[in-house]
Amino acid sequence: MFDLQMVLDRIQPVSAEAQAKVQSRIDRQAKPQGSLGRLEEFTRRFVAMTGREDIRNKRVYTFAGDHGVVEEGVSAFPQEVTPQMVLNFIDGGAGINALARHAGAEVQVVDMGVVGDFDDLPGLLRRKVAPGTANFTKGPAMSRAQALQALQVGVELAAQSKHDQVDLVGTGYMGIGNTTPSSAIVAAFTHLAPDQVTHRGTGIDDDALKNKIRVITAGLELNKPDPADPVDVLAKVGGFEIGGIAGLVLGCAAEQVPVVVDGFISTAGALIASELHPNVRDYIFAAHQSVEIGHRHMLQRIGQEPILDLGLRLGEGTGGALAMTLIEGALRVYREVLTFDEAGVSEGSEQ
Amino acid sequence: MFDLQMVLDRIQPVSAEAQAKVQSRIDRQAKPQGSLGRLEEFTRRFVAMTGREDIRNKRVYTFAGDHGVVEEGVSAFPQEVTPQMVLNFIDGGAGINALARHAGAEVQVVDMGVVGDFDDLPGLLRRKVAPGTANFTKGPAMSRAQALQALQVGVELAAQSKHDQVDLVGTGYMGIGNTTPSSAIVAAFTHLAPDQVTHRGTGIDDDALKNKIRVITAGLELNKPDPADPVDVLAKVGGFEIGGIAGLVLGCAAEQVPVVVDGFISTAGALIASELHPNVRDYIFAAHQSVEIGHRHMLQRIGQEPILDLGLRLGEGTGGALAMTLIEGALRVYREVLTFDEAGVSEGSEQ
Repeated sequence: MFDLQMVLDRIQPVSAEAQAKVQSRIDRQAKPQGSLGRLEEFTRRFVAMTGREDIRNKRVYTFAGDHGVVEEGVSAFPQEVTPQMVLNFIDGGAGINALARHAGAEVQVVDMGVVGDFDDLPGLLRRKVAPGTANFTKGPAMSRAQALQALQVGVELAAQSKHDQVDLVGTGYMGIGNTTPSSAIVAAFTHLAPDQVTHRGTGIDDDALKNKIRVITAGLELNKPDPADPVDVLAKVGGFEIGGIAGLVLGCAAEQVPVVVDGFISTAGALIASELHPNVRDYIFAAHQSVEIGHRHMLQRIGQEPILDLGLRLGEGTGGALAMTLIEGALRVYREVLTFDEAGVSEGSEQ
Repeated sequence: MFDLQMVLDRIQPVSAEAQAKVQSRIDRQAKPQGSLGRLEEFTRRFVAMTGREDIRNKRVYTFAGDHGVVEEGVSAFPQEVTPQMVLNFIDGGAGINALARHAGAEVQVVDMGVVGDFDDLPGLLRRKVAPGTANFTKGPAMSRAQALQALQVGVELAAQSKHDQVDLVGTGYMGIGNTTPSSAIVAAFTHLAPDQVTHRGTGIDDDALKNKIRVITAGLELNKPDPADPVDVLAKVGGFEIGGIAGLVLGCAAEQVPVVVDGFISTAGALIASELHPNVRDYIFAAHQSVEIGHRHMLQRIGQEPILDLGLRLGEGTGGALAMTLIEGALRVYREVLTFDEAGVSEGSEQ
């Protein structure tokens, strides 16, 4: 039986003392103090979390799931695209595959709840909770037991990552309709009105956007998710892939593995994890600022600044793969840049 | 004899038609249209400029020069740091070395005008125009002939890059005091007041900042650089490394080699190049948003958006090296992501 409380009890804050020690070494390197800006933050946090100065292995988990709410016409794409894209991920032909190769990261695809069955395929983890959530305008998206099962999958993948010497984990996702539950989740926690956190997803027009806002409003009114109970929010208006992501982020925090959270749907998962335990926030690197308008409200609540702002709205983990390369660059600076003494460089007078 | 006009006459705009052709292939790839945001822009521009879909070689030129104006107390660091850092670059121990290794780029260091002599060293290009500029509060920083000589060095390095099959060039710099001429240059072109474009450089305090603004104001009033004549601006209030960068950017535009412009001092050089010929702008990738407050005014005038915003203010080419990795990632997506047809994925209805 999955014991969520046992996972939560393992989550420690990242040591401020360890971070200060890293920063003091950075400050002896031959450059004006603080001149590498956020690269110094990445280094400080990564080294304090892991005790390491390099990244042995990087892995992106791309979670896939379907959403009953698509029958309300909230997406520009048909539901059959979810399994089609899963097969594209397995074949290595999607954006996340290209960018993960670029970043030197492995991709594992997790079927959390796609409608339709897959054969055993290399690189596919079959962890289906159910074939798609229920339409949350007619009742909860899933049962509480299913929400916990989705979280458990993610927690176990974090433990597997630790075991495999993965020092940087990325979160990705695929699921037609998944911006709809993500907007509902941020509205549930922040009490913002649905129209303040709902956007165009893969590219819907004005009328479809109005409908999407109506659907989210209806789902929240009917189900009344309790923001003090994040598992309830996940169950009432979430998704299976979002639950998997929330579990992965939670598990990474428990295992002290840094996790790069990519885009709107991943951040919905990370938000659920952060609401379950405040110290989860310490382990999150926010990969990028999504075009989705609800995204900044999520990040504000999590308390992390996005690393990139490139107008991405693909998902899959693509922004995370790019952000991984920047964290890796920061660590390279930490390992390889000489100190003032070593380099024979004079220090400034007003540092 | 260096013929600047001959270089300017070779500069063509990047073909809109070629860019549209690239975009139409991007739009057939299995992802929502436009969902890779600025990665699509990088690809469109790079492929249209070069006719290539990959990067054979990357190179960062780090230009070094000293500034007579440091005797006015504008920097937190002593002038001896310029040659010390040049030797650190050559030894591979600086930030740009670490990040260039991370990006798979070569670093070449160019002595444009450091005070003091260097031996022949591998990786050091000795192109000294003079040992430091003159103090521009007492007269022009350099003669017009010296300004043209600095430009020529950069133009020749661009030609060398083309010859060496370098498909992406980065600009970097080192020179104690060089934010002072850079602020003067942006003030000269934009007519903004010096206090609107002057910042703390490597870390000066409030009094030193006031003094720096006074110095820049005095230099502009005494020398009256003519913004309609960019060579005059370079000569009156510029620097040798800034001239080298301006020449490199100009030469890259003439050779149709994309150039990643890093930080405040590089952008001052790129601004001079852009004022010499409007189509130069097409070839510039703005690596990052510097902390220096004058930087955004430069980028506005050049018309390029920064790729990264990580609070960097080190210089050397560091932001450029990181931006190179993102451009490379974008090209990887272009080469490797399957089309809807190839991947067997259904297209959206409202694209």
